[in-house]
Amino acid sequence: MEPVNVGVINVTGYIGVDLARLLHQHPGVNLVSVTGRSAAGQKLGEVFPHMAEVDLMIEPDLGDVELAFSALPHGASAQSVVECLEEDIKVIDISADFRLKDVDEYQQWYEVTHPAPELLSEAVFGSPELNRAEIAGARLVANPGCYPTCSILALAPAIREELVDLDIIIDSKSGVSGAGRSLKLNTHFAEANENVSAYALGGHRHMPEIRQELQVLAGGQSVSLTFVPHLIPMTRGMLSSCYARLRKRVTLGEVRELYREFYRDEPFVRVVDTAPQTKQTLGSNFCLIHPVIDPRTERLIVISCIDNLVKGGAGQAIQNMNLMLGLPETTGLDGLAVYP
Amino acid sequence: MEPVNVGVINVTGYIGVDLARLLHQHPGVNLVSVTGRSAAGQKLGEVFPHMAEVDLMIEPDLGDVELAFSALPHGASAQSVVECLEEDIKVIDISADFRLKDVDEYQQWYEVTHPAPELLSEAVFGSPELNRAEIAGARLVANPGCYPTCSILALAPAIREELVDLDIIIDSKSGVSGAGRSLKLNTHFAEANENVSAYALGGHRHMPEIRQELQVLAGGQSVSLTFVPHLIPMTRGMLSSCYARLRKRVTLGEVRELYREFYRDEPFVRVVDTAPQTKQTLGSNFCLIHPVIDPRTERLIVISCIDNLVKGGAGQAIQNMNLMLGLPETTGLDGLAVYP
Amino acid sequence: MEPVNVGVINVTGYIGVDLARLLHQHPGVNLVSVTGRSAAGQKLGEVFPHMAEVDLMIEPDLGDVELAFSALPHGASAQSVVECLEEDIKVIDISADFRLKDVDEYQQWYEVTHPAPELLSEAVFGSPELNRAEIAGARLVANPGCYPTCSILALAPAIREELVDLDIIIDSKSGVSGAGRSLKLNTHFAEANENVSAYALGGHRHMPEIRQELQVLAGGQSVSLTFVPHLIPMTRGMLSSCYARLRKRVTLGEVRELYREFYRDEPFVRVVDTAPQTKQTLGSNFCLIHPVIDPRTERLIVISCIDNLVKGGAGQAIQNMNLMLGLPETTGLDGLAVYP
Amino acid sequence: MEPVNVGVINVTGYIGVDLARLLHQHPGVNLVSVTGRSAAGQKLGEVFPHMAEVDLMIEPDLGDVELAFSALPHGASAQSVVECLEEDIKVIDISADFRLKDVDEYQQWYEVTHPAPELLSEAVFGSPELNRAEIAGARLVANPGCYPTCSILALAPAIREELVDLDIIIDSKSGVSGAGRSLKLNTHFAEANENVSAYALGGHRHMPEIRQELQVLAGGQSVSLTFVPHLIPMTRGMLSSCYARLRKRVTLGEVRELYREFYRDEPFVRVVDTAPQTKQTLGSNFCLIHPVIDPRTERLIVISCIDNLVKGGAGQAIQNMNLMLGLPETTGLDGLAVYP
Repeated sequence: MEPVNVGVINVTGYIGVDLARLLHQHPGVNLVSVTGRSAAGQKLGEVFPHMAEVDLMIEPDLGDVELAFSALPHGASAQSVVECLEEDIKVIDISADFRLKDVDEYQQWYEVTHPAPELLSEAVFGSPELNRAEIAGARLVANPGCYPTCSILALAPAIREELVDLDIIIDSKSGVSGAGRSLKLNTHFAEANENVSAYALGGHRHMPEIRQELQVLAGGQSVSLTFVPHLIPMTRGMLSSCYARLRKRVTLGEVRELYREFYRDEPFVRVVDTAPQTKQTLGSNFCLIHPVIDPRTERLIVISCIDNLVKGGAGQAIQNMNLMLGLPETTGLDGLAVYP
Repeated sequence: MEPVNVGVINVTGYIGVDLARLLHQHPGVNLVSVTGRSAAGQKLGEVFPHMAEVDLMIEPDLGDVELAFSALPHGASAQSVVECLEEDIKVIDISADFRLKDVDEYQQWYEVTHPAPELLSEAVFGSPELNRAEIAGARLVANPGCYPTCSILALAPAIREELVDLDIIIDSKSGVSGAGRSLKLNTHFAEANENVSAYALGGHRHMPEIRQELQVLAGGQSVSLTFVPHLIPMTRGMLSSCYARLRKRVTLGEVRELYREFYRDEPFVRVVDTAPQTKQTLGSNFCLIHPVIDPRTERLIVISCIDNLVKGGAGQAIQNMNLMLGLPETTGLDGLAVYP
Repeated sequence: MEPVNVGVINVTGYIGVDLARLLHQHPGVNLVSVTGRSAAGQKLGEVFPHMAEVDLMIEPDLGDVELAFSALPHGASAQSVVECLEEDIKVIDISADFRLKDVDEYQQWYEVTHPAPELLSEAVFGSPELNRAEIAGARLVANPGCYPTCSILALAPAIREELVDLDIIIDSKSGVSGAGRSLKLNTHFAEANENVSAYALGGHRHMPEIRQELQVLAGGQSVSLTFVPHLIPMTRGMLSSCYARLRKRVTLGEVRELYREFYRDEPFVRVVDTAPQTKQTLGSNFCLIHPVIDPRTERLIVISCIDNLVKGGAGQAIQNMNLMLGLPETTGLDGLAVYP
Repeated sequence: MEPVNVGVINVTGYIGVDLARLLHQHPGVNLVSVTGRSAAGQKLGEVFPHMAEVDLMIEPDLGDVELAFSALPHGASAQSVVECLEEDIKVIDISADFRLKDVDEYQQWYEVTHPAPELLSEAVFGSPELNRAEIAGARLVANPGCYPTCSILALAPAIREELVDLDIIIDSKSGVSGAGRSLKLNTHFAEANENVSAYALGGHRHMPEIRQELQVLAGGQSVSLTFVPHLIPMTRGMLSSCYARLRKRVTLGEVRELYREFYRDEPFVRVVDTAPQTKQTLGSNFCLIHPVIDPRTERLIVISCIDNLVKGGAGQAIQNMNLMLGLPETTGLDGLAVYP
């Protein structure tokens, strides 16, 4: 099979450049076009020296491709998605523009008018474990956020199988790369290093995204969700600790079995019997999930880990691309974690 | 007033040596004796080069002191406490030996027979904000654990004032120094760095300690508590994120006012209006507390931060010592955080 | 003795705020005025939460003080120094404006016209170990840079005692806080963490400063100096590795004796017999120096460590202030390193 | 072509397990056997959860393979090499046992009697850029140490082309994983984090290895070498800063041209025009080299970076294996750096 030509719109952020890295190593596609406004006219390897092997110029506009990843900021991304679709280019949108199905909720959380609300119903939420068939047939996939990826996978089996009350607390810990490549005081090294903090206590934009998908898993029932993200002094990695009250008496063995059954054929989800560590996922597309029962409170606790830029970003986007192009789902994603 | 002679039993751990550092700088006491088994016969500055200014030999046995800190491991510490009390030496026990009031609970969690259960009722739980008067009159103070210090202070106002249901989740994040100076694989640099993990999911020894004190605050009512500690790639610092359902409708302003009122005269507790960061406490005896209401779920969220070795260890022990010796409570503890 | 009123001009950088922290704890002075342009009108504790105990407003202009620290950027700092001196305020200049004695060299390296070259001859290079008497009598002290402090102290005994050839290599390693609080890509957490790099290979501004002082120590002889700084993924701390060929046959014991003799009465310099670590200086004003002989090449190697913001900045400035005000030199600087 | 069966003796160290990771992803070989004494009987994925995808049991003894990597400690490794060769198994020795050609020098630095000195002359020093042909024909390759790899590549062009005096200083900085997986106090997280130190100032075992190879490059002339390693608070990564006096007047352009020419066809060495960073090599087999001239001292400075466990260990070993098996040299090693 001929490799498919693909491109990355706005390659200059951390997910953008990790897409380029993974696509370069992908045997089923050719990365032929990368764009970026501020860096246009420079070679990719000038802006990102680790990419020096890749002979690509950063262009102002997308070249001739069959599929594109849009890694623009929200708002701008939707506009580029529209343009791609008009030219029959399939798109995986890395931004949040097509994740929330409710345009009002989108506009309230993102404080912009949605540029293309008519596409919201067509866009597929790009969680391969939950929406594989729809993704395979989609023109437009909304790649999930990092916190949603980590948290939804942790809770999906419990919610789908009605194991827990729909009143959930998710306490998430993220490496600093999740905050992006734009300079801010709280991600300045001397501020972020040797430090941990909770943030967005008034409400994080990934909360409605997680809640929406949990409600889908709950068959449309309303979910009460407290979500608190924390900034951790490491570059990559994300861990979610999820808490929910068990609805029925189950043993730990039954819970594990339920989780294993749910993810039985998933190539990138591993239900593990010992507490996972983010380091066990570094650079890989794996999600590790560890459900336990707090014996004194009859509460389900689920710990999940991902690399926030791979399974929480570029890797999952490529997994979606593989599905959309009819390639084996794991193509280009079989790297194991770089440990230690 | 003449300085009081004090000593540190087992100075060779991180809290032990931080006690020595703070006592050396304390104007009201003389640190005259430090012990340590493996290091006996060496100068303190040979084992800990940052202490080279302090001219003390590590001895096998405690010298002539009025008050001692016992930083031995649990079990062994209780025995040294007994010996001190027999010689009319006041003791602050850094170990867990006298924290739990119920000897059976102690023996179940620590898997040793308690060497001196007859002292449990006399020992005072060394939380100055909650037990100031008892500490001032005590011969034996059980210095709280780091997680309990951080978590109990976060929740005390809400529980004492009956603001929340007694079904509580505490998700804590600790720097690696909390795991001590003994070598273990999970605290080996290449394993702990760039990594975050939950641990002790089956039950951490600090859980019953937190629950006991929360139940005291709740007037003896039973508290259901889920406590999950996490290891964070930083040396010092601890942050607890506490979750409980509000029992009544209150505004954020009322919650803050209630917290400020509760800690109005406390020299080391600061109720803050922006999310605190562990870095803001590094090296200091402060505890920062930030209560908020999750507007969508009517849940109280309290974020609290300490330096796990100072307010969570050596600093709080010295605060207790000041009370026991009739010194001003802040003596020797007025250092601000070392930022950045 | 009445405390002296002092102020900090431009408190909003890392050395500025560390000056405020140390001055707040200093028993011989009152910090009564702090300035800052962008933050003027805010409380110090709003901009720097760890300083919340200090009840000071950041003002646009300096209040009524006897001595001021100017922590403005170079160029701007010289202008504020002139204004202070005109009002009979003694000044310690944290910037580089009065460090280089040769105005042409200054203008070449800093690419600005010097605003007050007439003060260059009066300004004293604020290295207490080398210029104690001059500092005590000065109106204007140029506080040395961090790299110069660490490197000059490492080499001073060897050069003054003509132990080595005047062809020297200094390979320095600095924590990221040395690059300041302004946001730059290379100090963005995700870029600086898990990374080490050499920088300023074409010439760093601290090179002429080090060379100038080494030449003074060499009695005016010319010194050939290669200086290469490196950025290390830690917040605070600096280590210099200095290499020079021995001019005569000496034993290790003789070298150590020479170094100890040179620094015999220095309160903040410790000549140590085991390789020092930056962690042994964290938050303290100490400089640790470890001279050794490479047995195979007859080369002198000197390793030195400081906290770049304390002995390499705010702490040394306060040491200079103590001398200028006739206070005991160690006042307010007796804190030991915060370890681990 | 049929994949070749290979094995790893003592898979339980950091280079051992990184060999397993890279071999698992290698299309030209099958990893069929891994050994380890303490962990024998466990699954590889039990000891190293990131390897859970690899269905291998850790065995006490090596299975049926054509080529083995021996990652045993020195001394023990030589013995296992002898056994392999007796069974016609080609070996790449990760230990230092066959790197030094002079048995006396080996015994002096490693303080053991060499178990197989008769093999020293046959063993090929496994630096593909310098000894490609010999490696391709070898039965036994001594895989270079991490410091030697990084330093020799930095200096080889300058020495081979007689650009510099043979009096060289190498100041190297290594991530903590280089110290291995065995627990030691100086690699305990709370000790190594936020810390930098020089070590082995009396002489590091990699010094004679570097000197030996530089002397080969110098056509047998004696090289005077000062080598000082430093421990840096990061997991992976190594940077060497090399200093040598230029023997003749050259321009920067000529030096760069000479370096580029020397490494023209090398797939894993990149001569770069901006200062490289270790992060640009993380997880990859690249070595970045940046030669500059210090304009004031006519000194050549060369900065080089590698991932100490890949090009400085497992990756270079696989590069050697590819040569020994007649596979394309880059097979299984084409991963780009994981940035950030």
